Amino acid sequence: MIALLALCDVGDEIAFPAPYWPSYLDIARLSGLTTRALPYKSGTPDIGEWIDHFGDQTKVIVYSSPSNPTGSVLPATDLRALSEWAKETGRWLIADEIYQFQYYAEDGPAPSVLHLPEEESEHVVHISSASKTFALMGHRIGWITAHPSVIARCSGIASNMAGNVNTAGQALVTRALSTPREELAQRSAQLKRQRDVLCAALRDGVPWLRWTMPDGGLFVWCELADDLSGRWDGDTVAAALLSDQHVAVVPGSAFGHRDAVRLSFTEPPGKIIEGVQRIKTWGEARL
Amino acid sequence: MIALLALCDVGDEIAFPAPYWPSYLDIARLSGLTTRALPYKSGTPDIGEWIDHFGDQTKVIVYSSPSNPTGSVLPATDLRALSEWAKETGRWLIADEIYQFQYYAEDGPAPSVLHLPEEESEHVVHISSASKTFALMGHRIGWITAHPSVIARCSGIASNMAGNVNTAGQALVTRALSTPREELAQRSAQLKRQRDVLCAALRDGVPWLRWTMPDGGLFVWCELADDLSGRWDGDTVAAALLSDQHVAVVPGSAFGHRDAVRLSFTEPPGKIIEGVQRIKTWGEARL
Repeated sequence: MIALLALCDVGDEIAFPAPYWPSYLDIARLSGLTTRALPYKSGTPDIGEWIDHFGDQTKVIVYSSPSNPTGSVLPATDLRALSEWAKETGRWLIADEIYQFQYYAEDGPAPSVLHLPEEESEHVVHISSASKTFALMGHRIGWITAHPSVIARCSGIASNMAGNVNTAGQALVTRALSTPREELAQRSAQLKRQRDVLCAALRDGVPWLRWTMPDGGLFVWCELADDLSGRWDGDTVAAALLSDQHVAVVPGSAFGHRDAVRLSFTEPPGKIIEGVQRIKTWGEARL
Repeated sequence: MIALLALCDVGDEIAFPAPYWPSYLDIARLSGLTTRALPYKSGTPDIGEWIDHFGDQTKVIVYSSPSNPTGSVLPATDLRALSEWAKETGRWLIADEIYQFQYYAEDGPAPSVLHLPEEESEHVVHISSASKTFALMGHRIGWITAHPSVIARCSGIASNMAGNVNTAGQALVTRALSTPREELAQRSAQLKRQRDVLCAALRDGVPWLRWTMPDGGLFVWCELADDLSGRWDGDTVAAALLSDQHVAVVPGSAFGHRDAVRLSFTEPPGKIIEGVQRIKTWGEARL
């Protein structure tokens, strides 16, 4: 919200690809901005398609990579192309890289706009947080990396919205900054194992969900198979799973797509397997 | 900001008496609201005068009592009259009572809209914080008390702006809530002594500042005597005191009045006396 307020005036348009993190929409509304949700696209993002759909009035593009909810990751070449295009056309990119360290395709963090040459990233605003990077959820520490002129505006806005970053959280993050890279890598490896457990269980037991193995993030984005979509949607599936099986999934409507649910792999393998078993049981009885 | 976003749409007008807490103005701008600063008034607030100056388009009135910067306190009769008037005319009051427990006129906290009968306070939104109430500055814990329909909107907004109140701060405030009333009273008595020290020192040594002894808050609001106002204003006095005497005061321009400075009495008596001595020295040399 701070970054959007720093870049936009009331009435400006921001755009983001769907499925999207729901707060993009809510924050835009709170900030008096109009929104353009790019058409829903299944599977791997296509930045050429994004660019085709931005309006002439679009001032800021917001995306997450690794994505919440889909876990898809933009390669470095895409990041470079997007940032060059933003600079050329006078747009701004807000790169939400909250899940940069939850990346499973290779060793190390996901490709990031932070690695772009400085002169190519003048129109890029990078956001991240301690919640995911250091598993310090709830302490409300985030940060923005951008051109000094943008940061100056962000500082003024943040001081009015929140005064300062909370004292205890600052102390925690100061310690967390020296977390060894190996520890971050171990956490990421553990999440990767859990992702693999979830995907294997879904593959074996739940044919009515279609998904792509995510390269990052904490979630598997599951679309409902076509033969269900008349009778069920993400909302009704999520409500039924919760009430009948006590399994919590997030309906896709929250992210801009009705016919999907988002599954998390943050729990230990045993719980993940139990959860998928219940989804399977529910599906076999109802579908 | 949360309360304003809950009550207003882009383009709505909010009004506040001057001198005002500067964030009212900045937050309104960030939220796409127009502002009406009621004409500057020296000394005791006059709510009749406020009401005369609100526009037909004014949707929300924001005021602080005890006031930052003046320390003036609205009596209970004024609070009641304002809240009745808000309900009758469809306006909303945001009562910023951050300094409710820094009150020196009688024992106990300052008069508060929280003590109004429920049916009279339907259009009143009360805000306060742990920063001042429990001396937990920097932990960023505030709260809003209002009609459930307003609170529901505030919750939705807060969840998008901040997600949650930071975990460590919540734990601190949970403990602080059981602070004995006597301890709050002791802190208030200490501040009262410091206020008296500051006022006595100013009375004896600095004839070129005009002020009213504040009934609450942490500050003495000092207007420059008339014979200075051509040569000096609050900005130049504050800058000169800082560079020449290393005394920090806040210029009145921040609060909507050029010819004033705000002095704090949060330091121990010895420091207050030393500070006023330096202000006196500076004045005698320059004025």
